[in-house]
Amino acid sequence: MRALVTGGAGFIGSHLIDRLISRGDKVVVLDNLTSGKIEFIQGHIDSGLVTLIEGDITIFEDVLNAMNGIDCVFHLAANPDIRLGTKITDTDLKQGTIATYNIVESMRRCEVKKIVFASSSVVYGENAPMPTPENHGPCMPISLYGASKQAGEGLISSWVGTFGLQAWIFRFANIIGHRGTHGVIFDFIHKLKADPSRLEVLGNGLQEKSYMEVGDCVEGILHVMEKSNDSLNLYNLGSHDTASVKRIAEIVVEETNCLDAKIEYTGGDRGWAGDIPRAMLGIDKMLSTGYDVRYSSEEAIRHTAKCLIEEIGL
Amino acid sequence: MRALVTGGAGFIGSHLIDRLISRGDKVVVLDNLTSGKIEFIQGHIDSGLVTLIEGDITIFEDVLNAMNGIDCVFHLAANPDIRLGTKITDTDLKQGTIATYNIVESMRRCEVKKIVFASSSVVYGENAPMPTPENHGPCMPISLYGASKQAGEGLISSWVGTFGLQAWIFRFANIIGHRGTHGVIFDFIHKLKADPSRLEVLGNGLQEKSYMEVGDCVEGILHVMEKSNDSLNLYNLGSHDTASVKRIAEIVVEETNCLDAKIEYTGGDRGWAGDIPRAMLGIDKMLSTGYDVRYSSEEAIRHTAKCLIEEIGL
Repeated sequence: MRALVTGGAGFIGSHLIDRLISRGDKVVVLDNLTSGKIEFIQGHIDSGLVTLIEGDITIFEDVLNAMNGIDCVFHLAANPDIRLGTKITDTDLKQGTIATYNIVESMRRCEVKKIVFASSSVVYGENAPMPTPENHGPCMPISLYGASKQAGEGLISSWVGTFGLQAWIFRFANIIGHRGTHGVIFDFIHKLKADPSRLEVLGNGLQEKSYMEVGDCVEGILHVMEKSNDSLNLYNLGSHDTASVKRIAEIVVEETNCLDAKIEYTGGDRGWAGDIPRAMLGIDKMLSTGYDVRYSSEEAIRHTAKCLIEEIGL
Repeated sequence: MRALVTGGAGFIGSHLIDRLISRGDKVVVLDNLTSGKIEFIQGHIDSGLVTLIEGDITIFEDVLNAMNGIDCVFHLAANPDIRLGTKITDTDLKQGTIATYNIVESMRRCEVKKIVFASSSVVYGENAPMPTPENHGPCMPISLYGASKQAGEGLISSWVGTFGLQAWIFRFANIIGHRGTHGVIFDFIHKLKADPSRLEVLGNGLQEKSYMEVGDCVEGILHVMEKSNDSLNLYNLGSHDTASVKRIAEIVVEETNCLDAKIEYTGGDRGWAGDIPRAMLGIDKMLSTGYDVRYSSEEAIRHTAKCLIEEIGL
């Protein structure tokens, strides 16, 4: 198979490519290298198995030019910073919604039929039942990032219904691990590196979410794709439990060995406007395909802390 | 109250304005007059109660300029032709999704706090249970129009969650009536006007949907707004039953008195790719506010046929 991975030089994308290459696929990467890093995939580029197109998913021609000879698109590229929407309101519209339009429209024109889309638990919005099943409704996202993921899902489902695309939409829990370029663990390590005596935590620390190790995530994607073949396949991908931000702070303090760091909470029930305080995906549908994760939320967090401390350095 | 009605010169918009004016509101209309008609609101313009801004919701400055001094936005403007998405794929993106971004972002900048949004039953997609309640999920629209309505809902809910907007989102059944500018009854009358001997019907005629008279619709909007006050209020608006396309064809043949017209079906279970063959909204939530419709689907269809025959002429 010849796969196009948007955001392929990024965190999840580069792990997915490791797996695609190991099973014998050819991969084209479309990435603008703003948050992705070429070193994540340099080995594969050097071995000739990955072709990097440095281009922007917000530019229609860049997307169209990457679509030549592709069998399946893994559309992972997006603004990775959920909080940014509180300050700049058109980033998710452009890099999320309009970019996804560029993807599906290019696929239509080039007769590429299969797409995998990285959606998110944040499409469920606030106050959903926990764990949240795929058939929860109504989905009313409270972040601009969540709105763009929902819009992306809708664009894809409408291209399925109108133009015969086949799609796998995955709503991800918080994906963490090796090569992480953002997120709470990444932030905490950087804060402790700058000042080992204190760790500022946004909110009251009681925010509680489900975390999934990135290897478990990409393995889950490929497993579910093998086991499902509807025109539109929708799956939550997550782990069996949750962890609080307080617990993450404690683990990062332990793993960085900043044992004297004072953990300080800014207060309030959430990290920022549009943050969802509590989230846990229902994963029965994923489990029913015969796939299960290796890491619990806490295990994934500790593993990620170790990996990122090594990558970031203290 | 000073209301901004986008698409205020259009079918539903002009009826809404009649009601807003009759209850004493001041109204600003933003309309590009492509499908809206100035004569629908000319009386109100002449009496000084309605100000028309001829502008385009796809142009951010046009929207921003219309927002001055507004208390509540009724965002009705959109591409009215669902079928168009099968041929031109960026119309709904621009006139639906991006336009709605322009609306909510302008509201944020101008500190306008209340929005009413005309969404649609088509956000539920295909194979939803009938009648479909508001909490149905997952919503996977199959038309590009449906995708843009879902994206609009998500943008609005994210502005509610992030920037404190208050919103009423209404998912409409098929709204029909006096001043209709599109839709199946409108099309049938035009076809019979051109050739009274035959009536071509797209699909097999078994498509079955719920129809709501436009006066019932705008009355429902204002009633529900009075009775609900959450930060985000989501309501289906529809009638108690459905009618088939075959039945609509029969009624239009009767009302046009083209009794010898041969009704010919193009075949297939739907009118076009992205059409939903069967749809009926659950209206328990609407009814629980104490509001009910005056017209059944068939009554609304017959009433509409009479109105449009008079407007179009035979």
